[in-house]
Amino acid sequence: MTGRVTLVGAGPGDPDLITVAGLKAIRAAEVIIHDRLIPAELLAEAGPGTTVIDVGKIPRRPGPSQESINELLVNYGREHDVVRLKGGDSFVFGRGGEEVAACTQAGIAVRVIPGITSAVAAPELAGIPVTMRGLTQGFTVLSGHLPPGDAGSSVDWSALARTNTTLVILMGMAEIATISETLIANGLPGETPSAVIASAGGPAQRTLVATLAGLAAAVDAAGLTHPAVIVIGAVAGLATGSAEPIESGSLAS
Amino acid sequence: MTGRVTLVGAGPGDPDLITVAGLKAIRAAEVIIHDRLIPAELLAEAGPGTTVIDVGKIPRRPGPSQESINELLVNYGREHDVVRLKGGDSFVFGRGGEEVAACTQAGIAVRVIPGITSAVAAPELAGIPVTMRGLTQGFTVLSGHLPPGDAGSSVDWSALARTNTTLVILMGMAEIATISETLIANGLPGETPSAVIASAGGPAQRTLVATLAGLAAAVDAAGLTHPAVIVIGAVAGLATGSAEPIESGSLAS
Ligand SMILES: C[S@@+](CC[C@H](N)C(=O)[O-])C[C@H]1O[C@@H](n2cnc3c(N)ncnc32)[C@H](O)[C@@H]1O
Ligand SMILES: C[S@@+](CC[C@H](N)C(=O)[O-])C[C@H]1O[C@@H](n2cnc3c(N)ncnc32)[C@H](O)[C@@H]1O
Repeated sequence: MTGRVTLVGAGPGDPDLITVAGLKAIRAAEVIIHDRLIPAELLAEAGPGTTVIDVGKIPRRPGPSQESINELLVNYGREHDVVRLKGGDSFVFGRGGEEVAACTQAGIAVRVIPGITSAVAAPELAGIPVTMRGLTQGFTVLSGHLPPGDAGSSVDWSALARTNTTLVILMGMAEIATISETLIANGLPGETPSAVIASAGGPAQRTLVATLAGLAAAVDAAGLTHPAVIVIGAVAGLATGSAEPIESGSLAS
Repeated sequence: MTGRVTLVGAGPGDPDLITVAGLKAIRAAEVIIHDRLIPAELLAEAGPGTTVIDVGKIPRRPGPSQESINELLVNYGREHDVVRLKGGDSFVFGRGGEEVAACTQAGIAVRVIPGITSAVAAPELAGIPVTMRGLTQGFTVLSGHLPPGDAGSSVDWSALARTNTTLVILMGMAEIATISETLIANGLPGETPSAVIASAGGPAQRTLVATLAGLAAAVDAAGLTHPAVIVIGAVAGLATGSAEPIESGSLAS
């Protein structure tokens, strides 16, 4: 066996937010297996003979299963230099751990090149530091895909409300009302500054700032959609400097 | 005023783990103001006429104060294209928020280019995904600089022990015994898999795996030192594939 698999995090959207190591891997790849929403500029960096396979899943529509993606990686990885290109970082809600395990079990050499995760960069590109001296000494990154109360959720949202860390929620737009109500019911003040950053790093980036209590209604009113990151905590009040003017929800009112 | 300040995250140590955008900013800079531990290869990318200023602080020794760094940024930023180069990401325990505020208050244009944070990448480079389907639905990043019980700490460590998220602790090596004892006293099982990854991304990277109860002693025995990231949670048991062989603490024994 002469092949190997390299998981590469592409970053949050701007093609220049990939790492130098990730770009080199793309240029050297024989096969690229990529998710939806990977900047087209990055795929254009592939060499002329490169096989490019799109396994992107459209939310709420059936796409290739994770099992069939794992099979592709293993089958191509036996003899080819394969890049598995994913949004953000492969190990932050990216199923990279499962793909590494599948390759390792099949005896395929596998390595991971970190990417800029939207969990830190989406707030950052809107001027929000996830940590800030005097405001917060830590941050917690969560999936909103399994909301509070869901039988599949293992996160203790009542403990979360009391950690005093900045909360950063990915995949949370569909459950934003449940999430904010649960946090308030468990002791987070309704006036806690909160923000939503949609399509960070791209030309359509939009930032909305509101109180935690007013967040769901403000997001509805502004029509903000996926992909977006929710930030809850004092640092959300620092949002500035997004490409687009910041939209004010109920924080101002 | 024709200058501006760009905060650039250099990533965790390997010079190829900077972003393409960050590298372009370094190459175009007239002035680079950098921290300690920035890869020398990155500074070598600066143009021939570039002014390079090291404001790195050596832990426990007095270095330039944050106020004097802010002053440098503001003074050079009025007329020059300034890059402020920091390890990891500027907004993860990097005081980037304060530097942005100082520039903004002085009327200097400022932007931030995200970097790969050691909080995600140090575990990743040791084979540990901070999130993993079936194991954990989130992760919490904390500073160990102000340990549990410190009057200046605003983090609720007892709530933390119950969130069911992976815990990732930066700047925690000096307080590793206090941190693990506090988490165990608040309900985290002593058998919780834990890992320490030191000097991630560089040639001296070392990974140690132990139980939470045995972690402090294992770190002592192995002589692991700063800079290092501590990971506590089921995912720590997945550590593999570090450049150096993994050292076993008490997890195996
Ligand atoms: C399946 S997760 C993958 C996260 C990715 N691995 C990462 O590290 O950024 C998808 C979620 O990431 C967030 N996301 C990804 N790209 C984003 C962007 N450009 N702007 C805002 N949120 C983004 C959204 O919360 C989205 O629902
Ligand atoms: C002041 S904080 C700065 C963190 C940085 N802004 C980041 O995003 O990675 C310094 C701490 O980061 C962690 N760290 C930085 N570089 C590291 C590396 N290469 N390997 C392991 N830990 C690292 C250590 O916990 C160290 O004490």
